[in-house]
Amino acid sequence: MKKNKRVGSLITELLSHPSKQYSYNQFCSKFDIAKSSLSEDITTAGEIIASEGIGRIETIQGANGGLRYVPALSDDRLKQLQTTLVNKLSDPARILGGSFLYTSDIMFDGQLTRSMGTYFAGKFANLNADYVVTVETKGISLAADVAFMMNLPLVVVRREAKYSEGSTVSINYFSGSYDRIQKMSISKRAVSQNKRAIIIDDFMRGGGSLKGVSEILSEFDIDVVGAGVAIASREPVKKKIASYLPVIYLDSIDEDANLIKASFE
Amino acid sequence: MKKNKRVGSLITELLSHPSKQYSYNQFCSKFDIAKSSLSEDITTAGEIIASEGIGRIETIQGANGGLRYVPALSDDRLKQLQTTLVNKLSDPARILGGSFLYTSDIMFDGQLTRSMGTYFAGKFANLNADYVVTVETKGISLAADVAFMMNLPLVVVRREAKYSEGSTVSINYFSGSYDRIQKMSISKRAVSQNKRAIIIDDFMRGGGSLKGVSEILSEFDIDVVGAGVAIASREPVKKKIASYLPVIYLDSIDEDANLIKASFE
Repeated sequence: MKKNKRVGSLITELLSHPSKQYSYNQFCSKFDIAKSSLSEDITTAGEIIASEGIGRIETIQGANGGLRYVPALSDDRLKQLQTTLVNKLSDPARILGGSFLYTSDIMFDGQLTRSMGTYFAGKFANLNADYVVTVETKGISLAADVAFMMNLPLVVVRREAKYSEGSTVSINYFSGSYDRIQKMSISKRAVSQNKRAIIIDDFMRGGGSLKGVSEILSEFDIDVVGAGVAIASREPVKKKIASYLPVIYLDSIDEDANLIKASFE
Repeated sequence: MKKNKRVGSLITELLSHPSKQYSYNQFCSKFDIAKSSLSEDITTAGEIIASEGIGRIETIQGANGGLRYVPALSDDRLKQLQTTLVNKLSDPARILGGSFLYTSDIMFDGQLTRSMGTYFAGKFANLNADYVVTVETKGISLAADVAFMMNLPLVVVRREAKYSEGSTVSINYFSGSYDRIQKMSISKRAVSQNKRAIIIDDFMRGGGSLKGVSEILSEFDIDVVGAGVAIASREPVKKKIASYLPVIYLDSIDEDANLIKASFE
């Protein structure tokens, strides 16, 4: 196999399995080449991926060594993504009244969730997480992309305990957005004790939902090691969770002036 | 840029934007090469993608011509996927009683939904669909992957009308699985009139859910041109929808013998 085919094949395999670790031998036998040639191919493939701004190839030396594609978004790509999101979110046609915005088209746009997923995967890569967790419904597509990029299982917390989830643990929590007590429920089969989780959601106002997810996970002694949201409201300034990473901010909605302000700095 | 870098870069771009059409000029200027050299690069990239069993590069001649990556699963890859799914589904630990199985781990496994999404995208590529539609919750990750692979918007039908969906259209339908009337609801902002949709769901028994989605879409004069499900139950033989494409079949659940049978032929 010629070098240009090997590099293309390496990229295809790695991009199809982000964050998965491969041994050098797998590719040496597949391509029937020595490790020194593979190392050159990896360098070339790594340069291409880096120049596309979607991450890097990490090589691990030693007996358990190998390589993996670590997704991440370059600063340029991130700024592009944030600009696109801010422009989309600022469309006054989204105003539903009562400080609600229609965002389902954004949250179910595969190219946008893919980019956001790549961004979060890069930021959370070193947290040794075991799960990506979200609460249904609008953040599922984004959380699935984060989980895919990090090669982790996705856990979806339900609003109501479903028979098809087996036995569940449920909690009640206060949702500021809806100004009422809400319920969430997690299948006991979905998680193990003493693990580490990253929480992903589409939108955060006061942080009640994310705190709820955090509480339900604490029933299994699962630590929340990172939290990412597509859109975070600037108000209220004080959130119910200590730290979170937004892609963009919703600054204000002025229904009378038909104006939405969003930003990312 | 050398050929091996160009081919790698072409593959990275195309795999990141499945089904998106690019003009030849975009790559000719990016790589600073003539169309004849690009054609050779496209051939090489196409051979690599085909040999990985994840689809092909389609070239379109003429003034509006260009190229795109059309995802599809090779027969070998499909058989691998089906075997994996059948083995996973046959694990008796999934039995919840009342002919329900726990499948959330399968339906939220990013590698599995990605492969299934590639399979459906290949099968539905020529139907000129405008939307991929699913009903919450367990099929969202799969439907999102199909939509990503087909470069189409994902529409998620909700169980209950949510304030954040704006004005909605709702219907009641009979769910055989739950043996009761259920409700579903779609945002008026999510779809336009007179379009074509592909429906995706995680599981089908009698087809009530899929028929419900079909009915709610008919309120917008949207034709359902294809339907795909991850797992279809063999029973009942007669389904409420005329045609559907399953990845695998659930043959039977024997609670007493603690035995699940699944197959794909």
